[in-house]
Amino acid sequence: MQDRIDRVRAQMRKTDVAAFLVSSSYHLRYLFGFTGSNGLGLITSDLCFFVTDWRYRDQAQEEVRNAEILIVRRDLLAALKEKNILPEGSRLGFEAQHLSFRLFSQLQKNFEKIKFVATEHFIEKIAIPKSPGEIASLRQAGAMACAVWDLILPCIHRGVSESDIAAEIIYRSRKLGSEIEAFDPIVASGPRSALPHGRSTNRRLQSGDFVVIDYGCVVEGYASDVTRTIAVGEPPAKLVAAHAAVKAACQLACEAARPGMEGIKLDEVVRKFFESRGFKDEFNHSLGHGLGLDVHSLPRLGPESKDIIPANAVITIEPGLYFPELGGVRLEDDVLVTATGNEVLTPMSRELFVVE
Amino acid sequence: MQDRIDRVRAQMRKTDVAAFLVSSSYHLRYLFGFTGSNGLGLITSDLCFFVTDWRYRDQAQEEVRNAEILIVRRDLLAALKEKNILPEGSRLGFEAQHLSFRLFSQLQKNFEKIKFVATEHFIEKIAIPKSPGEIASLRQAGAMACAVWDLILPCIHRGVSESDIAAEIIYRSRKLGSEIEAFDPIVASGPRSALPHGRSTNRRLQSGDFVVIDYGCVVEGYASDVTRTIAVGEPPAKLVAAHAAVKAACQLACEAARPGMEGIKLDEVVRKFFESRGFKDEFNHSLGHGLGLDVHSLPRLGPESKDIIPANAVITIEPGLYFPELGGVRLEDDVLVTATGNEVLTPMSRELFVVE
Repeated sequence: MQDRIDRVRAQMRKTDVAAFLVSSSYHLRYLFGFTGSNGLGLITSDLCFFVTDWRYRDQAQEEVRNAEILIVRRDLLAALKEKNILPEGSRLGFEAQHLSFRLFSQLQKNFEKIKFVATEHFIEKIAIPKSPGEIASLRQAGAMACAVWDLILPCIHRGVSESDIAAEIIYRSRKLGSEIEAFDPIVASGPRSALPHGRSTNRRLQSGDFVVIDYGCVVEGYASDVTRTIAVGEPPAKLVAAHAAVKAACQLACEAARPGMEGIKLDEVVRKFFESRGFKDEFNHSLGHGLGLDVHSLPRLGPESKDIIPANAVITIEPGLYFPELGGVRLEDDVLVTATGNEVLTPMSRELFVVE
Repeated sequence: MQDRIDRVRAQMRKTDVAAFLVSSSYHLRYLFGFTGSNGLGLITSDLCFFVTDWRYRDQAQEEVRNAEILIVRRDLLAALKEKNILPEGSRLGFEAQHLSFRLFSQLQKNFEKIKFVATEHFIEKIAIPKSPGEIASLRQAGAMACAVWDLILPCIHRGVSESDIAAEIIYRSRKLGSEIEAFDPIVASGPRSALPHGRSTNRRLQSGDFVVIDYGCVVEGYASDVTRTIAVGEPPAKLVAAHAAVKAACQLACEAARPGMEGIKLDEVVRKFFESRGFKDEFNHSLGHGLGLDVHSLPRLGPESKDIIPANAVITIEPGLYFPELGGVRLEDDVLVTATGNEVLTPMSRELFVVE
């Protein structure tokens, strides 16, 4: 983990900040190993502090690496201030997206003569290329999601509710060792499958339904994120055709993904393919996103993304087609981009599963 | 729900703000009924807008009440700006705790000649007294947690892992209709039970363990939050004595809780009782917290809380005693404070459960 701190310091020099405040819980885990819910990290050119409250005293002693640990009753910022390591006029970088306005105000009060530098994706960018250890966890999380699929498939049939399927996904994931859900499973059936973000409801599967099932496991904090679409009985021909197109799109994107590519370019491969098949308006979200401790991270793969996909990035590839009131199809795999091409971390069949 | 908007407007007049921006997802659900993950609400003295992105178009149409719905491709703030309803110099209240610095900066750019007023607990305070409908959901969430307990108790014995117990809790909760977990279940056994916030691990229960189990169900967005402590085989006498004290403390607090009381006063009842029993330093967290859409809300019950507990508030009462390296005990119930006293919404036995 020390090399991560080194990369933060290199980034600090480029940004001309004397110190950097880490507030995102994902980044506190990434840089210091802390898995609790309340903490802050402060990195300077030669020092590192991690501060949390007394509830996490034992946990911090056990988990935290790379930093001097400070335990306080309440006020984390006051504890950092007491260390008195920021000379007047210093530039202090912080995570604009991961700091509340409230905490920012407290920061201003505690550090009066400091210049605050709002940063975007400061740690996210550093975290894109994954180490062999991170890749091992991501691979394991992907394999776990595949194993869960094999276990839940027999539970899916007419009459079962979306919520029942979600319960089975979570139960099987946990029993296989998933630390937590990467996100609450999406199970959207029938007309609801046209909603890209449909939460599971009490709706029961009926003949003719398409069912979009999207979930992920977590290993050592690292997430997988997979989607498959199932047909119940005799589904509409239009959706069956859409499934074939989405499957082909997935295949195309997996063939195209390679290091050095811009996110927009990979998205374009799929968007153009769908247009050639007559689906101009039905693919109305991005192709995918980076995967790491946070299930939605960098690089973004979408029609506006200039993000470069480097070697050792792990991304999702998730084309989908949605037809309001009829239904939708999405397939999603996790892909490790390697020096020479890529490797699918979720090797599950992309055929249309039909159940009764 | 219209009366909630009326209460916001009354609060706006007191705070002298012409408009209020709602950014917390809990508050967007509370005021507008929206259950998605991306949205903003803007309330003025006579208008209400709710804006979200196209992914939630259908969902917003179905769910959102009390507001004109705006659907945008990306920039939620730009859509609100276009409505042009804030005259120069207007005071705009916002939720300091629930707005990132990044979104605040965008707010400043979009609304140049507006005066921003950071507020604390603006909606939280309004949401403390619960309506009959909210109480019905909270009562149901409490009853569900009790039903889950009866189902998981037979699964708890020597050799079972903490994670297995967590998996059973979630599975049973979902099958009984819980929408999601109120929080990831805490299952902390043996020496780990001394950690108030111990996540479940692969540790297997051994004879002599105390096991702290803390979880909650969700009904219509409203959470329950219960804790019971189990003994495996022959536990240390010190922990058995601690359990008796915690049980008595729970009883005392439930007898004392009544409308109009300050949070600090109820906390004091328990803290003094523990001191009288020789436990001065072992109760090292607050007595409890308000319960609602957010599982940790107002009023706070702790040694520094001046919050008043009004009639129709729902609170947790969760005394605990912790002995580093030995183990801990916590019991937690959800309590509706009524006009005349209170009602326990989680009527489960507080006896020490002993399993083999």
